[in-house]
Amino acid sequence: MESGGGGGCGGAKRWGFRPNAAAASAATWSVRGTLNKIRAAVPAGDARVAIPLGNGDPSLFASFRTPAAAEDAVVAAVRSAQFNCYAPAVGIPSARSAIAEYLSRDLPYKLSSDDIFVTGGCTQAVDAVFSILARPGVNILLPMPGFPLYEARSVFSGIDVRYFDLIPEKGWEIDLEAVEALADENTAAMVIINPNNPCGNVFTYQHLAKVAETASKLGIMVIADEVYDHLVFGSDPFVPMGVFGETVPVVTLGSISKRWVVPGWRLGWVAICDPKGILRETKVVDSIASYLNISTDPATFIQGAIPHILENTKEDFFNKIIALLRETADICYNAIKEIECITCPHKPEGSMFVMVKLNISCLEHIHDDVDFCKKLAKEESVIILPGSALGMKNWLRITFAIDPSSLADGLGRLKSFCRRNAKLRN
Amino acid sequence: MESGGGGGCGGAKRWGFRPNAAAASAATWSVRGTLNKIRAAVPAGDARVAIPLGNGDPSLFASFRTPAAAEDAVVAAVRSAQFNCYAPAVGIPSARSAIAEYLSRDLPYKLSSDDIFVTGGCTQAVDAVFSILARPGVNILLPMPGFPLYEARSVFSGIDVRYFDLIPEKGWEIDLEAVEALADENTAAMVIINPNNPCGNVFTYQHLAKVAETASKLGIMVIADEVYDHLVFGSDPFVPMGVFGETVPVVTLGSISKRWVVPGWRLGWVAICDPKGILRETKVVDSIASYLNISTDPATFIQGAIPHILENTKEDFFNKIIALLRETADICYNAIKEIECITCPHKPEGSMFVMVKLNISCLEHIHDDVDFCKKLAKEESVIILPGSALGMKNWLRITFAIDPSSLADGLGRLKSFCRRNAKLRN
Repeated sequence: MESGGGGGCGGAKRWGFRPNAAAASAATWSVRGTLNKIRAAVPAGDARVAIPLGNGDPSLFASFRTPAAAEDAVVAAVRSAQFNCYAPAVGIPSARSAIAEYLSRDLPYKLSSDDIFVTGGCTQAVDAVFSILARPGVNILLPMPGFPLYEARSVFSGIDVRYFDLIPEKGWEIDLEAVEALADENTAAMVIINPNNPCGNVFTYQHLAKVAETASKLGIMVIADEVYDHLVFGSDPFVPMGVFGETVPVVTLGSISKRWVVPGWRLGWVAICDPKGILRETKVVDSIASYLNISTDPATFIQGAIPHILENTKEDFFNKIIALLRETADICYNAIKEIECITCPHKPEGSMFVMVKLNISCLEHIHDDVDFCKKLAKEESVIILPGSALGMKNWLRITFAIDPSSLADGLGRLKSFCRRNAKLRN
Repeated sequence: MESGGGGGCGGAKRWGFRPNAAAASAATWSVRGTLNKIRAAVPAGDARVAIPLGNGDPSLFASFRTPAAAEDAVVAAVRSAQFNCYAPAVGIPSARSAIAEYLSRDLPYKLSSDDIFVTGGCTQAVDAVFSILARPGVNILLPMPGFPLYEARSVFSGIDVRYFDLIPEKGWEIDLEAVEALADENTAAMVIINPNNPCGNVFTYQHLAKVAETASKLGIMVIADEVYDHLVFGSDPFVPMGVFGETVPVVTLGSISKRWVVPGWRLGWVAICDPKGILRETKVVDSIASYLNISTDPATFIQGAIPHILENTKEDFFNKIIALLRETADICYNAIKEIECITCPHKPEGSMFVMVKLNISCLEHIHDDVDFCKKLAKEESVIILPGSALGMKNWLRITFAIDPSSLADGLGRLKSFCRRNAKLRN
């Protein structure tokens, strides 16, 4: 039997199916796809444990274990047998209302249940919002560096992407002049990530106010990725973009993945922070609800647990995690200062990451950041995300959100690697 | 401040966003969207409990409660704290391998872990497969009646849909001549649902063999929706379409939602039943993996529980559920025979549904099936899905998968309603 894709060279067409090129191309923009390739370089024979400095998921370290109250809430929901059923596409009422109440604590107005859509982590929140904004010719403004899922979903949905810079010399603030220059009549939205992944900075109230004014002037919504909400440990507090919802319509994306250290629970949300009702009037809100009708949902019992998770988690837990991240951010920043050929332009103050610049000309036999990360994985069993995955060639994204002793070990190996591969100085 | 969608009448453009029409239009094809509208007609003042004969989710009835072994497995996975982390996009290895082993029991060859993609219920399985098959000009053949999610995902992805009939007079067998007539060089796949939703029939081995031969001749894959796998209680056994994987490439979609009565757990799969490797060769398999890289996942701890759920659930549980469905299918079929103005062409032998034909001319002041269902909800607090939601005007889809006494109550109310609304005979 002859087989092969339709229209393939050298054979008659046997099968009528072939894959969508956009899907394959979109997936090249994926942190997990890139990390899989880097991880594959770790040698099976290394007696040392591999050190994961690649992604923001410290859940397997005992020091980052989610509080018992969160586990208890999920177990109780399972045992109740009241949440084995399908959920409404928008989320179960108790979850929507608990999330609305939780987010409203930090806003100058109250969100209602109807402002909340419960999603399968922030990933599905991005899927829903980008899917409903896609229309012929539309473009969206994304930060550089940013989070590749936004590119991926844009490519997949046929949305044109335009990049504005985050400026390392200004503590990774948004280049708002670039935003103004990029936007046109087909621009639907700009994305901001705060606390920032990958840069580890936290936008000030004043800067966010300027973002709101700029977006309002341009007539675009702000999509505020706040998946790292409240994970701040520098001088600036976390300010939700929704605070500026009177100035510009804000669609906030969030989840319990990071603050509760349970990314595998896949519970997130889209929050409509728009007290003027512009997103309702323009049918954006209806469209999100419609799209969720034909999409999968987070497990109903995790939704059932959410009111208890949000209510019963003690401040002690949050304080412990913040103290731990402050400690590991310090370890990371100080260690990097002592490592040859890499520099960190800005000390991290939030999220779980820092961006560092690779001075490739100072290294021998290493072509670029991807080559660096592959060789580092091979020689030292340390996994770091190459900046290329985020559009920043010859940068690295390092997470410090792991156990302090593992972090010190990993950074020590990174230091040895750089020393060993540095060109001899004249 | 002026607001409104771009290009709206009567005002300058203020905001650059407006929703994607395909998303809104796709969502009109949704069982849950339709049922929400029917449910809204149930009067708040009715002292009687509403009877849900609308969707296939009996999980809230004690008689359909999932086995303790399944709950225990999830609780143990949560308590272990080993599954709070992100999962690989394709699923965690232990879940993939357990599902491969489970499905292989009924196949003449062995599936490997690499043949399984773990998804957020069957819904995400459909999303993934349809997203990667979408390309300009492509069409897919769908059964009529069928399951609206297939239409919805086709519309959303820009796939052209062509319908073949299921023939009520032949026990809802597929009109394979129609399939042959519909397919052309742009046809990628045909979808079959077995055991069948909405008709309640079970395809025989011989009929499935003909499906395989037809699809092979046409050069199209078979997408086999087997979400109701093993839920059969008539004379024909359940035969997985994958049995014919040597004849034609089969992509099987399944989940634990129905057999374990836990639709809210959102754990499903795509299984590549293709021992000749045609779907690998044509990059369909790679594309599914790529698409899942940019999509949400089922909760990691539910994946962690899957090997135990599949292994520890006793035959007793399955036998009890089958006996219950056989009993309720009988109750339903026999009751319908006694109800004026509706007829059932085929006794259900599988799944949780039966299709019945409404003789609209025999009813007074009822325009069509939607009107029928709304008035039934209003007058009797009984929820039934109008056939229009499945493209079958003046038919009804009734689920019998509820507690027998509630079912008898609901069918009694349906009978009263029909009697009350029937035209007086001459």
